[in-house]
Amino acid sequence: MSHFESLDPLFHPRSIALAGITIANPEHWTRVFLDALIEIGFEGPIYLVNPKGGEIQGYKVYKSLRDIPGTVDYVISTVPAQASPELVEECDTKGVRAIHFCTAGFSETGEQEGARLEAQLVEASRRKGIRIIGPNCMGIYCPQSRLSFSIAFPQESGHVAFVSQSGGNAGGLVRLAAWRGVRFSKGISYGNACDLDESDFLEYLADDPDTKIIGLYIEGVKDGARFHRALERAAKEKVVVLLKGGITHGGSRAAAGHTGSLAGAEVIWDALCRQFGIIRVYSLEEMADILQTLLFMPIPKGRNVALIGAGGGNSVLVADEFEKKGLIVPQLPQEIVHRIREFSPAAGNIFRNPIDYSQTIMETGKLGELVSIVSAWESIDFLIGFLDLGFAAPQTLRSGELSRWADAMSEMIPASSKPIAMVPQLSVVPGHANELMIIAQAFISSQVPTYMSFASAATSINLLLTYKECYPGRLEALRG
Amino acid sequence: MSHFESLDPLFHPRSIALAGITIANPEHWTRVFLDALIEIGFEGPIYLVNPKGGEIQGYKVYKSLRDIPGTVDYVISTVPAQASPELVEECDTKGVRAIHFCTAGFSETGEQEGARLEAQLVEASRRKGIRIIGPNCMGIYCPQSRLSFSIAFPQESGHVAFVSQSGGNAGGLVRLAAWRGVRFSKGISYGNACDLDESDFLEYLADDPDTKIIGLYIEGVKDGARFHRALERAAKEKVVVLLKGGITHGGSRAAAGHTGSLAGAEVIWDALCRQFGIIRVYSLEEMADILQTLLFMPIPKGRNVALIGAGGGNSVLVADEFEKKGLIVPQLPQEIVHRIREFSPAAGNIFRNPIDYSQTIMETGKLGELVSIVSAWESIDFLIGFLDLGFAAPQTLRSGELSRWADAMSEMIPASSKPIAMVPQLSVVPGHANELMIIAQAFISSQVPTYMSFASAATSINLLLTYKECYPGRLEALRG
Repeated sequence: MSHFESLDPLFHPRSIALAGITIANPEHWTRVFLDALIEIGFEGPIYLVNPKGGEIQGYKVYKSLRDIPGTVDYVISTVPAQASPELVEECDTKGVRAIHFCTAGFSETGEQEGARLEAQLVEASRRKGIRIIGPNCMGIYCPQSRLSFSIAFPQESGHVAFVSQSGGNAGGLVRLAAWRGVRFSKGISYGNACDLDESDFLEYLADDPDTKIIGLYIEGVKDGARFHRALERAAKEKVVVLLKGGITHGGSRAAAGHTGSLAGAEVIWDALCRQFGIIRVYSLEEMADILQTLLFMPIPKGRNVALIGAGGGNSVLVADEFEKKGLIVPQLPQEIVHRIREFSPAAGNIFRNPIDYSQTIMETGKLGELVSIVSAWESIDFLIGFLDLGFAAPQTLRSGELSRWADAMSEMIPASSKPIAMVPQLSVVPGHANELMIIAQAFISSQVPTYMSFASAATSINLLLTYKECYPGRLEALRG
Repeated sequence: MSHFESLDPLFHPRSIALAGITIANPEHWTRVFLDALIEIGFEGPIYLVNPKGGEIQGYKVYKSLRDIPGTVDYVISTVPAQASPELVEECDTKGVRAIHFCTAGFSETGEQEGARLEAQLVEASRRKGIRIIGPNCMGIYCPQSRLSFSIAFPQESGHVAFVSQSGGNAGGLVRLAAWRGVRFSKGISYGNACDLDESDFLEYLADDPDTKIIGLYIEGVKDGARFHRALERAAKEKVVVLLKGGITHGGSRAAAGHTGSLAGAEVIWDALCRQFGIIRVYSLEEMADILQTLLFMPIPKGRNVALIGAGGGNSVLVADEFEKKGLIVPQLPQEIVHRIREFSPAAGNIFRNPIDYSQTIMETGKLGELVSIVSAWESIDFLIGFLDLGFAAPQTLRSGELSRWADAMSEMIPASSKPIAMVPQLSVVPGHANELMIIAQAFISSQVPTYMSFASAATSINLLLTYKECYPGRLEALRG
């Protein structure tokens, strides 16, 4: 049996038992898995287990795993750390092949008792041949199997997989990326990795036909040499994006306390990424942005960008932001400026690049004409349409003004003959934020790459272009 | 008459004429000054001028400046560029001493006609001895004199002045900073600087007793040697913060189109800042954050921070963020961990640093006790309280949960014996954003420094500490 075949059943359990679920309090954290499985519509039987017995939402609560009438493929455990080794024994008699231990309180505490309990878990699982995910993690998300560890995760499948040592960051990434239109094949939050670890999941995903992109959040690895091989292979088969936690002294101390990891030197991680062609990011937002970019940004031929939008003073800072990140903001030649000037007043508009079209942007049709002329220019490889409300207080906007700006931006998309992305810049002043996100969502739902700041657009598009330049064939494979 | 005495009347006009205001359309951009002056309550007469005559909101519209019965100290002009030289002549016959030309269409267009008109303006003003602000700018904001160029600017005065070449960035800065509790003494958007320029305003503000901090947004300077002297002097008298626009090729081309500036080499600006002790920032948000920090952050003795909040996986990235910015996240010693463990469960909490207190944070009183123990530790110089909702979808939050988290954070403030700042991290997922900003505002209104991201907190506090370390006496003067 191949490694892929041996792990694949974890992602497709036919029945699940939730061991340790709280009876009394429907808002207790041990309830999240039941809520998630009901919401996403897990199709096999869900068995609840708690020594007290009883009933939750029409589900019988068994006092012991042994009392469950049917077979149990997969157990999600929220029993206290102390009760975990005993649970492994019960699972063995029931014929369970895999357990996800959500509970914390093991080696990550840095305390002897936690380390002892974790060693006991490993020993028991090895003896019984039961695979363990965790402890101290959120487990598996696989929309295709209707398997999820949180409500409000997308129900549809996609082609991005993630492997995250942290449960919080796994959830954070799904939310940030899903909002940007990213959908997932599989996701794993693996925590302390006492049995199955990052290398196991990387090897699995490298062979997974449903996965095209792998996002990794890693604090530290258990077996460096094996991870090295797994990462090299994964990067050959898929596009791999890495967010490394614990790159400073303080961060690696936090990682030790979080998932019991030794973080390793930053310089080694940097070298690994260069050697294997891994895209490196530095925050969850950057991870979500590059996933969106890899999926939806048509690949520009080069680094020359035309920035078209509203907000004069800021145009200068926007150009700085893009050029600092390695993109090029070429000046419009006089010939093009003249063509635009034929239908646009000079005052209040700026016809260099960025093109600040504030004064004319609301006049329907003219923005499309402008975009069509600029995108046809041979020295432009892609366009950014922007709306920067930094100049305006919520009180200064007239009723419906925000949606008229959004409509004007939409006109740019069909008018452009080159790849185009949108930046409805998130201004950190109350009143605009949720509305701007709704505007962004409209673009995202049409699969137009959309960023909430100029900096994040520039960072992501630079990463895309760098990847394309270094590994010419790989993006074609991704898009094909 | 000193330079200060000659410029001071610009900030205290007794009467204002708005030349070029549109009669028909109350939403036309030329109406912003009338709206702003009415809202802030300018106490002297406001005269409106338009060749068509008529009436706006009960104000008589004069057909010419010459028809105004009283004296006019100050003119805000929105007449077209072509009509501007003629307006200077009219102002002269009326005895006006200063004109703010808001209108664009001058040298910043890069077109001959615009440059010719601007040269004509300068010539006329020199000949008549009339001072000009602009053209292509928003002019003066001086809450003490009830003078403003936008509605929704703070009506109260403060001790921060700004000088901005860009009108859009001037407005953006006021909004971003005001929201963070910053209040202003004077603000100037000076545009093309055909007469009064950045050096004039810097020299003025260096002597202004109402100003303690000066924020500068500059794209390029007219007279390098004079600016050099003005900046040196201002930095001796006040705390000066600089945002330089046009630091890349693309940005400087945009600056040329925006305010007709030659941007100058980045290396020179960097050297100037080091030489004179100027705090350098790279975005309007960073400017707003450092202004808030300078005003409200109690000055930590050193760089050691304790990070206390909720969000496990993210704790690692947060520690990285702070240490990358030059701050130190020391590990809690066992003795302190033991004291905290006496009243806190180990599972789901992390007692290194960052301290992820997710599991216990809601239990009133315990968070205060934790903060009191940690802040008393000699190896900690300041604290950050954080709330990171990255792990939670809006749908997963229970009713009132967000405000209970906020209440828990508030408990930290009186419990800390060291300086403390707050980070209700702005998660870019719709549904949370406006609510988190409201939580942030509650802290801000109590003058607790508050940042919308870990990165911005780390950046600003590092700038504050670096300034303190390099110029030990200056911050004391600011706070005194």
